[in-house]
Amino acid sequence: MSSPTAVRRVLLAGGTHGNEWIGAWLVRKWQHDARSIQRQGFDTAVLLANPPAVERGVRYLDQDLNRSFDDPRADGASWEERRAREILEDFGAGGRTPVDVVLDLHTTTANMGLSYIITNLDPFNLRMAAWVARREPGLRVYAWIDETLPKSALSTIVPRGATIEVGPTANNVVRGDLLLGTERVVGHCLDFIEASARDDWTPQPEKLEVFMHLRSYDYPRDASGAVTAFVHPKLQDADYQPLGPGDPIFQSLDGETLFYEGEAPVYPVFVNEAAYYEKAIAFSVTRREILWV
Amino acid sequence: MSSPTAVRRVLLAGGTHGNEWIGAWLVRKWQHDARSIQRQGFDTAVLLANPPAVERGVRYLDQDLNRSFDDPRADGASWEERRAREILEDFGAGGRTPVDVVLDLHTTTANMGLSYIITNLDPFNLRMAAWVARREPGLRVYAWIDETLPKSALSTIVPRGATIEVGPTANNVVRGDLLLGTERVVGHCLDFIEASARDDWTPQPEKLEVFMHLRSYDYPRDASGAVTAFVHPKLQDADYQPLGPGDPIFQSLDGETLFYEGEAPVYPVFVNEAAYYEKAIAFSVTRREILWV
Repeated sequence: MSSPTAVRRVLLAGGTHGNEWIGAWLVRKWQHDARSIQRQGFDTAVLLANPPAVERGVRYLDQDLNRSFDDPRADGASWEERRAREILEDFGAGGRTPVDVVLDLHTTTANMGLSYIITNLDPFNLRMAAWVARREPGLRVYAWIDETLPKSALSTIVPRGATIEVGPTANNVVRGDLLLGTERVVGHCLDFIEASARDDWTPQPEKLEVFMHLRSYDYPRDASGAVTAFVHPKLQDADYQPLGPGDPIFQSLDGETLFYEGEAPVYPVFVNEAAYYEKAIAFSVTRREILWV
Repeated sequence: MSSPTAVRRVLLAGGTHGNEWIGAWLVRKWQHDARSIQRQGFDTAVLLANPPAVERGVRYLDQDLNRSFDDPRADGASWEERRAREILEDFGAGGRTPVDVVLDLHTTTANMGLSYIITNLDPFNLRMAAWVARREPGLRVYAWIDETLPKSALSTIVPRGATIEVGPTANNVVRGDLLLGTERVVGHCLDFIEASARDDWTPQPEKLEVFMHLRSYDYPRDASGAVTAFVHPKLQDADYQPLGPGDPIFQSLDGETLFYEGEAPVYPVFVNEAAYYEKAIAFSVTRREILWV
């Protein structure tokens, strides 16, 4: 383990984006009845991260809360910056009730199934990912390590944790299959933390498939910034499927097809995520790696 | 034909709901290049119905524009009521450039595929539906005749027309397959209108499968109105599939399953549509009928 610190408190967060209802609903469930998230050896706190955004069914009020944890100011002009500071003062390393692990629950409009996003390669995180992947066939592990998420996401306020990202789903609905899948993944994580804290815990090295972030691609746009092409039907829903030169990626409104020209094979993720039009991301690409963890 | 009036002008509307992008994108395309929607014998106008809602990526600003056409006031308090009046004064029966047929383009988060919604059984509408269904395998015709839509939807400002409803898709994205499908359906409608205006047009009676609206069901809610159960995974995505007594319809957060108890067989539509949580509709049910049209 990278950190010898025992896990004393875990934070389960939902509603970080107010239009992603599965996390918000699970937080509501656990606030009412915490039995399913209780384990031996540590406490589990639950947090509805952005209540007014959940109330209004919008991703955020002023700015993306999940890009706001890189040194937010308590007197910041945006609600989410102030809220990020509050959360840090409650649960961050120097906070009132600091946590050791954060699991943050999200949904996506992309066909990412059950995805487990890590933002560093801390051995604790890799071993937890492997534990969950072994128990949840089909779960994919995506290491989103770039200039943005690892510094500013809620799951990164401490080194240990993950973002659980499930899709495809529209915003402002609850899909039962994905809610139940999210609940299973959280349960596996809590089981891992409980098991790893036991004195007789002797982890055996095992293989883990990890999709390592490479870069993102924007939509074609005109001079005014308006998007002029849609994701090609052959790339739509093809998250985690191999993509290579000559494969179609966009189709313009007047019928022109655009093709991928980069390195290969890569594996796209977040294909046509609704919230990323404004972030200039039509899809990201990853490299598939097998790690011993 | 119920109406002997020749079709002189057709209105193609998109962006009636500002977060349903396929219609808005097609309107933008046609405003730039109208060749694909031009036919002999009539004019085709295009309308971005709710521009500020499209700009903000929201369904509406003040109220649902597609429930606002039942005698809206020009000095109404809501933007959409005033906008509905403007549209009527432009394109309604007594307007400046009245239209004879309205096609309004929508998307849904429900698994409705390519759906063709009519709000009356006008023979022109049924024959146009049959023409399109014959050319677009998989298209479903839904007759939504209840106390709401037939009076207040944009497609009902004149007796002839349809709402084209495609899904499943998240809001605020463009799925290429559904955009291309919508474009094909619009093309078939325009072809029908062109063909039906010819002097030598002699329609032959044919069968048409129509899903006739029966009623809608709300989500289970607590005393405060909060939804307490999600659509059961077996009903999710099961639009137009037979539903009968004993079939699961909801699952509560604490694991209880609720079952359908009504008449059978019925065929659900709009299962888990994001915009209908606020309208108290978890799904609607229809009766399948075969009409000679």
